[in-house]
Amino acid sequence: MIRIAIDAMGGDFAPVEIVKGAVEGAKEYNVALQLVGDEEQIKFELAKYDINGLDIQITHTDEVIEMGESPTKALRQKKKASIVLSVDSVAKGESQAVVAAGSTGAAMASSLFGLGRLQGIHRPAICATLPSKKKHIVLVDAGANTDSEPKNLYQSAIMGRVFAQEVLGYENPTVGLMNIGEEAGKGNALAKETFAILENKKEELNFIGNIEGRDVLVGDCHVIVCDGFVGNVILKVVEGTAVVLFDLIREQFMSSPFAKILGGLCKPLFGNIKKKMDYSEYGGALLLGVKGITVISHGSSKAHAIKNAVRVAKEAVDKDINGKIVKGL
Amino acid sequence: MIRIAIDAMGGDFAPVEIVKGAVEGAKEYNVALQLVGDEEQIKFELAKYDINGLDIQITHTDEVIEMGESPTKALRQKKKASIVLSVDSVAKGESQAVVAAGSTGAAMASSLFGLGRLQGIHRPAICATLPSKKKHIVLVDAGANTDSEPKNLYQSAIMGRVFAQEVLGYENPTVGLMNIGEEAGKGNALAKETFAILENKKEELNFIGNIEGRDVLVGDCHVIVCDGFVGNVILKVVEGTAVVLFDLIREQFMSSPFAKILGGLCKPLFGNIKKKMDYSEYGGALLLGVKGITVISHGSSKAHAIKNAVRVAKEAVDKDINGKIVKGL
Repeated sequence: MIRIAIDAMGGDFAPVEIVKGAVEGAKEYNVALQLVGDEEQIKFELAKYDINGLDIQITHTDEVIEMGESPTKALRQKKKASIVLSVDSVAKGESQAVVAAGSTGAAMASSLFGLGRLQGIHRPAICATLPSKKKHIVLVDAGANTDSEPKNLYQSAIMGRVFAQEVLGYENPTVGLMNIGEEAGKGNALAKETFAILENKKEELNFIGNIEGRDVLVGDCHVIVCDGFVGNVILKVVEGTAVVLFDLIREQFMSSPFAKILGGLCKPLFGNIKKKMDYSEYGGALLLGVKGITVISHGSSKAHAIKNAVRVAKEAVDKDINGKIVKGL
Repeated sequence: MIRIAIDAMGGDFAPVEIVKGAVEGAKEYNVALQLVGDEEQIKFELAKYDINGLDIQITHTDEVIEMGESPTKALRQKKKASIVLSVDSVAKGESQAVVAAGSTGAAMASSLFGLGRLQGIHRPAICATLPSKKKHIVLVDAGANTDSEPKNLYQSAIMGRVFAQEVLGYENPTVGLMNIGEEAGKGNALAKETFAILENKKEELNFIGNIEGRDVLVGDCHVIVCDGFVGNVILKVVEGTAVVLFDLIREQFMSSPFAKILGGLCKPLFGNIKKKMDYSEYGGALLLGVKGITVISHGSSKAHAIKNAVRVAKEAVDKDINGKIVKGL
């Protein structure tokens, strides 16, 4: 049985929502858990649920890396931080994957140091799942490498494709390069050089060429490749634009008594859209390229997101995506 | 009287909407026009309007740079292209500004070659206006320099601030650096070095530090500074996200007969939001840093956008923003 290590202290709603989601995930996806954090708090949360028949172990620690801390500094000082011990459990082979909703930087750094890189991988990348008008799509790198080289983006394309095939279920996912124009020869030096490499592997990668910012949510490009700085900006601009638009809609529906009534009647329709755009449906982003599976969940994850993160972690292990990445290189 | 040169052949709806918008702008903002393009077509369009009392000159040419063409190659081959002659009119001092809705690359290249750089400016930058939850904001560079250096971003901050003050009317606009985290020390090499420069001029620039993708449309940061690759991606991701969300909303309102009725009733509310988010309200982006004023309008601009582009061009000339940029350096 697969065991998943969960940083029970990471995220805005830890440990309450983390433990709840972990228990739900363990039940639904039939996995064992390694909950890492304050034992007393974890036990208090576990007591709320029927955990009969579940295989749950606890690793106690009272060190936690907070969101504002410098990851590298914190890792040096807090050798027993919950995220460090979670990763450690995978490094020792006691667990097969980590789910972390705390500091992304700390999850990344501890995974990189604790697990090491996959054979042949120059740098790990964050593989984020995004909603689109059609099915879910993949954005890679969503923030691991802020100064990337063309070879990093090429490896991101391979890793993103394996993820899109194995976890999102695309048979032959399309790969596109994020750029500022569709034609070859567009973009900065990184984009131009990467284009040449990807074009060279056109068939293997199902490379469809450059795509632009306005294509992201259309959903025809299944794996969007870019460097970590641009990817992180995209992720947050999409999120921010959606939040502001929904705020503006809410304002309109509060603008008069009649509008309020309309708003009430429209609620189920907007509920459908919000569900489609909801990040918690896909649980978290995968840090790909390390020797192990690390799922990085949104800091504001509630139980539903953590449950789905457990599913993603389990699928990544079950489908041996790391083996397939190494084979694909 | 200020004369504005307009590439009458540039854009998806040229010359029909361009000429219409130009005439509306000339009337409303009391400017003279230099319409550049096919004389017969321009005269045919002008005949539709009462242009009595307007000062309109036509420069005939039958060369046009199309959207798909390589700007540098096209400029070499089409020495009499409408955009080239429009810029030329400013270079000769016959007009004081250009409005162009055709190929952005061609407008940029012809302005740079035809007008030259402002004294002290290393590289011109595109200064785009964006809607936000509050007032309009500025994104600079929105696509001129794809491989920027810290000094370029510093100059963008200065140019963006002058634009925000003089054209958008902010008294002391805030400047933020687009980054992937709020804390100092975050980001890629470019962001880190630029942060140090901007922090050093904190008071002068009213620098508020790093901002993230999700802050763009919130509207508290009035001038967002980034390199041209990232800026262009942001611009298009915002646009694309809004388009997809409105598509999803439309789908929901078509999902049942009752939803259709609701959709009809909600139309005015969504009209208010669309108006708030409508790029045509601010006419176009300014290419700042060249010796002259070039307003680059969206390729799909209709008359309303062109009319507003005329207003932006006139204000940029009236307020002498180039003089203020040179003074600010």
